[in-house]
Amino acid sequence: MFESAELGHTIDKKTYDRQVPKLRADLLDAQFDMGELKKYPSIILINGVNGAGKGETVNLLNAWMDPRHIQTHAFPPPSDEERERPFMWRFWRALPPKGKIGILFGNWYTEPIVGRAMKKTKAADLDQSIEEINRFEKMLSDEGALILKFWMHLSKDAQRKRLKALEKDKDTRWRVTPEDWTIFKMYDKFRGVSEHVLRHTSTGHAPWLVVEGADERYRSLTVGRILLEALRKRQRIEGERGWKARSAAAPLPPATDTRDLINSLDMRQALTKKKFDKALEKYQGRLNQLTRHPKFRDRSLICVFEGSDAAGKGGTIRRITGALDARQYQIIPIAAPSEEERAQPYLWRFWRHVPRTGRVTIFDRSWYGRVLVERVEGFAQEADWMRAYAEINDFEDQLVRSGAVVVKFWLAITAEEQLKRFKEREKTRFKRFKITEEDWRNRKKWDAYEHAVCDMIDRSSTEIAPWTLVEANDKLHARIKVLKTLCDRLEAAMKA
Amino acid sequence: MFESAELGHTIDKKTYDRQVPKLRADLLDAQFDMGELKKYPSIILINGVNGAGKGETVNLLNAWMDPRHIQTHAFPPPSDEERERPFMWRFWRALPPKGKIGILFGNWYTEPIVGRAMKKTKAADLDQSIEEINRFEKMLSDEGALILKFWMHLSKDAQRKRLKALEKDKDTRWRVTPEDWTIFKMYDKFRGVSEHVLRHTSTGHAPWLVVEGADERYRSLTVGRILLEALRKRQRIEGERGWKARSAAAPLPPATDTRDLINSLDMRQALTKKKFDKALEKYQGRLNQLTRHPKFRDRSLICVFEGSDAAGKGGTIRRITGALDARQYQIIPIAAPSEEERAQPYLWRFWRHVPRTGRVTIFDRSWYGRVLVERVEGFAQEADWMRAYAEINDFEDQLVRSGAVVVKFWLAITAEEQLKRFKEREKTRFKRFKITEEDWRNRKKWDAYEHAVCDMIDRSSTEIAPWTLVEANDKLHARIKVLKTLCDRLEAAMKA
Repeated sequence: MFESAELGHTIDKKTYDRQVPKLRADLLDAQFDMGELKKYPSIILINGVNGAGKGETVNLLNAWMDPRHIQTHAFPPPSDEERERPFMWRFWRALPPKGKIGILFGNWYTEPIVGRAMKKTKAADLDQSIEEINRFEKMLSDEGALILKFWMHLSKDAQRKRLKALEKDKDTRWRVTPEDWTIFKMYDKFRGVSEHVLRHTSTGHAPWLVVEGADERYRSLTVGRILLEALRKRQRIEGERGWKARSAAAPLPPATDTRDLINSLDMRQALTKKKFDKALEKYQGRLNQLTRHPKFRDRSLICVFEGSDAAGKGGTIRRITGALDARQYQIIPIAAPSEEERAQPYLWRFWRHVPRTGRVTIFDRSWYGRVLVERVEGFAQEADWMRAYAEINDFEDQLVRSGAVVVKFWLAITAEEQLKRFKEREKTRFKRFKITEEDWRNRKKWDAYEHAVCDMIDRSSTEIAPWTLVEANDKLHARIKVLKTLCDRLEAAMKA
Repeated sequence: MFESAELGHTIDKKTYDRQVPKLRADLLDAQFDMGELKKYPSIILINGVNGAGKGETVNLLNAWMDPRHIQTHAFPPPSDEERERPFMWRFWRALPPKGKIGILFGNWYTEPIVGRAMKKTKAADLDQSIEEINRFEKMLSDEGALILKFWMHLSKDAQRKRLKALEKDKDTRWRVTPEDWTIFKMYDKFRGVSEHVLRHTSTGHAPWLVVEGADERYRSLTVGRILLEALRKRQRIEGERGWKARSAAAPLPPATDTRDLINSLDMRQALTKKKFDKALEKYQGRLNQLTRHPKFRDRSLICVFEGSDAAGKGGTIRRITGALDARQYQIIPIAAPSEEERAQPYLWRFWRHVPRTGRVTIFDRSWYGRVLVERVEGFAQEADWMRAYAEINDFEDQLVRSGAVVVKFWLAITAEEQLKRFKEREKTRFKRFKITEEDWRNRKKWDAYEHAVCDMIDRSSTEIAPWTLVEANDKLHARIKVLKTLCDRLEAAMKA
């Protein structure tokens, strides 16, 4: 991976001075076009060897382009708000919106490489990180991001020469610390790990660009040209035919009979009011105790509610919050995304609501909208909602590994029950229960929705975050089943 | 203040059971109307005496209304991200957007009251806090917020009885801690301080609502009714004539001659390229050292750039960032507010970008848009931009007190120079320098803008955050003046 970046590339001053003005003007132009178009963000990762000009390159890009539309992020030790959330949360926070350039200096590659070189993690851990990174970058790319990964390189020899030269000059001597030499001694180890990581994360949509860092002029021109070329190419594609994720989806198997997960539910299940009252008190009490348990301070609870219109999500959620301290939970009702949310990958607006430890977040509709309403209504293309299943699994996997308990409910009612509830609502005096045209329209697509729901459950009911199907024709039965499931899941997680 | 809340109010069960269902339905309806209208947020503060039902009231409101559109915030000890910003930052973060209800439990009243009762602060500190709170709440109210401040009260006697009763029952004994008795012993002290605070913060737009907390039914019905009444009244006003901030502004004195701050500047000031190069190196070096100084780790730098179109803000900003490490600064270009920003008080979108310590934030245009473009173009009504001067001073005062160095630049060019630059830009091949129709339109309002600028400087150039007027007909002179000012201000602040 590094051979070409150890040849001692140089650019003479004359060539450099001749080429830079045009390059800068072109870069500025390309950045301007990207900002006007607002169709994709550019994510620039800067990694590499100490002393190979990483910081200088970041400053250079800010100097050559319009820094007002560049967001540069370094990642010092995480804040407490970051530590209480999944590892990737801080990077999601730093993603640039469409039209902007984000330079991430010290990013999702840093910890896996350093950890492995320092032998704090095992080879298998590193390979897991690599796989996660690949999936993450693939998702970013499919969501439209232009990803450029620069690896600034120095050979061991060049690295040694650099440190010696700095030490020799009395003005720069202070810049060489004992730590620099310690890191230098680990050069081969870091090189080995880095090479492994680069080889396995150099993908078609996000290849590594290794740049020899010894000569400042060579380095600067190289980075600038690569960036310009990438911006221009993308702009050309946008202009010609619009950029499109190329991942073709394998078709889902058609149902070969009419039996599915939803219509196999026993919808007659019901509770008497008396039994309900008793069970409600019992489970609300248990849920309250569980969320006040000292062990819960290191966990969090994320509840997802999906279901047909009028399936009773709101009422069920109120029975959960009735058991909780209002200071502890947030309910996030999901409607159309805001402008700021539309400028980001679709999962961004859920990442921003990931709770800290000791907290409960209830999503009233969720990221599953991608494979339900967006699929059925055609808001998302097939390739996009098809990849969402895997992306969602990755998201939930990160939540669970950070200590969250993820509980997902599908509230199922029959078409007849829905019709009954719609008609009741139309009669009621409360305007907040009014039935909209949209509700009636959605109803006509009952079969398409049922098909989407069954696919969703098949593809996203995982061991770590299973779906619970709730027979909700009887509201009392549904509420108790939800409460009991929550208690059981929390209890199991806190025992583990 | 508390007399009426020590009478031993009670409501019998029968009355309660009869009144609650209708009250709940009405509250839900009122909440729904507010959510549909999306014109104002409701901010509900819950404060008061221990054991007077504060937590219970918060839970009750969530149970009686639709909790999906209520955001409840408690304020445990601040996170490190919060500690590195002004005291009020965490409350700004928690403000509900228009259409939503925000319940703030433990809020901007808590620390001033507790600090004074514990004698950690002086009477003068408390009075300063009171004044700041009044100004803050006035601003919220002028921005449209419906503010309800509940003080849950218990007499000393009722407080003692409550603790004794809890201790007597073996099931509730654990709820009484030694700390409860310690706090009880300070009852009179807390009462005195609280009364002082309530008296001085009970304003027409945000009066305190003292509720006796001993009887749960009385307390619940009272809070519910007050809230319903407030929501309905506001809704009625919105329906009838639209809600309007009633603060009438005193007219600004008209200019009695043609001499003003801007046209008194000596616009002939200029630098040769040679002098500029030397000065640039000097001041960029100084700025770099200042921002890398250990003392800067506890400070932050906030730069504000305002100026006519084509005054050279972008180029000047690049000369500043050229001296900084890109990991350390963010540039915030201010254009039209986003949807999420429009749902909040106008200062919210600037608060969200307040830097942590050790960081630099550069605003390319700023909160002063309120008294410049919004004033001149009529986007804000006179009463609204007139109050902005004081609100902005309050904002900057908080920034400075938290350790930020706030440096504000007005880049001034003459009308002739602007015309020259516009024409040059029209000739240049770079599309990013294109002149828009709007630029030409703004130019026609030159005098109105100049008038607004002079008013702005008169009213917001304070000792802690003065304006620096920069004669910018000569770009070289302007850039050096800005850099030198920044260095001087930073140096002075870090010496202090």
